[in-house]
Amino acid sequence: MLVTRHLLYLSVMYNKKFFQVSSDIEWKDLGNGVSRQMLGHDGQMMMVKVKFESGAVGAIHQHPHVQVSYVESGIFELTIGEEIKTLRQGDGYFVPPDVLHGCLCVEAGVLIDAFTPAREDFLIESM
Amino acid sequence: MLVTRHLLYLSVMYNKKFFQVSSDIEWKDLGNGVSRQMLGHDGQMMMVKVKFESGAVGAIHQHPHVQVSYVESGIFELTIGEEIKTLRQGDGYFVPPDVLHGCLCVEAGVLIDAFTPAREDFLIESM
Repeated sequence: MLVTRHLLYLSVMYNKKFFQVSSDIEWKDLGNGVSRQMLGHDGQMMMVKVKFESGAVGAIHQHPHVQVSYVESGIFELTIGEEIKTLRQGDGYFVPPDVLHGCLCVEAGVLIDAFTPAREDFLIESM
Repeated sequence: MLVTRHLLYLSVMYNKKFFQVSSDIEWKDLGNGVSRQMLGHDGQMMMVKVKFESGAVGAIHQHPHVQVSYVESGIFELTIGEEIKTLRQGDGYFVPPDVLHGCLCVEAGVLIDAFTPAREDFLIESM
C-alpha cells in the first residue's frame, strides 16, 4: 500500500502537463467554504487556485515553502507575521518560509497561490 | 556605476515586502501592447502580472526558470514546445526550464506568471 501510494505520488509529482484547463480540473472541497484546484506543477514549483465563500477562513499556518499569491477576485484580510492588510482583486502577497499566515475572506473570491518547492502535502491529499 | 547598480539590484532582490497593492505598483511598458507589474518576489521566486492588448504577442522565448502561469482574464493562444492551445480566464499553463514558449492575445487580458528562481532580468529592467 505504501509502495503503491509512493508510485502514485511520483506519477502525479512528475506529471508536467503544459496546459491546465479549469473545466477539466477537479475541485477539492477543503470544508468550511474553501475549495482548491491544482494548476501547473512539478517538483520545484506549484500553482493552485483557492476559492473562498464570504466569511471563510484560511486558518493561520506556516510551511517551509516560499509562497507568492495573487488576489484573482474578492476581498481578503491577510495576516502575515505581525502584519494585517486588506487586499482586493489585482493585489498580491509574499510569504517567506516558516512565517505564520492566514486569511479571512471578506467578499467571496479566489486566491492564486504559487509555491516553491511544490506542496507535496497537496499532491498526497489529491490522491 | 556598476557597483551602484549591483547594490541597487541587491536591495530590490531582497525587498521581501509581505503585501503588494496593485494601485501602488508601477506598470512597465514593454511595448507593442504589453505591460508588466512586479508582484511578490525574493531570490527564490517571483510573481508578475502581464497585461496584453488584443492582438499583442508574447514572442517565443525560453529561460532556465520554471514558470507556472494563470489566465486572470482574456483569451490567449499559448505555444509551449510543440503544443498550441487556446486558454481562457481560469486556466493555467506550465513551462519547464528551457522550453520555448510564447503567446498571442486573442482577447485583451492579464496573465499571472510565477517563476523559480526569480527573474533577475526583470529586476534589472525595473531599475
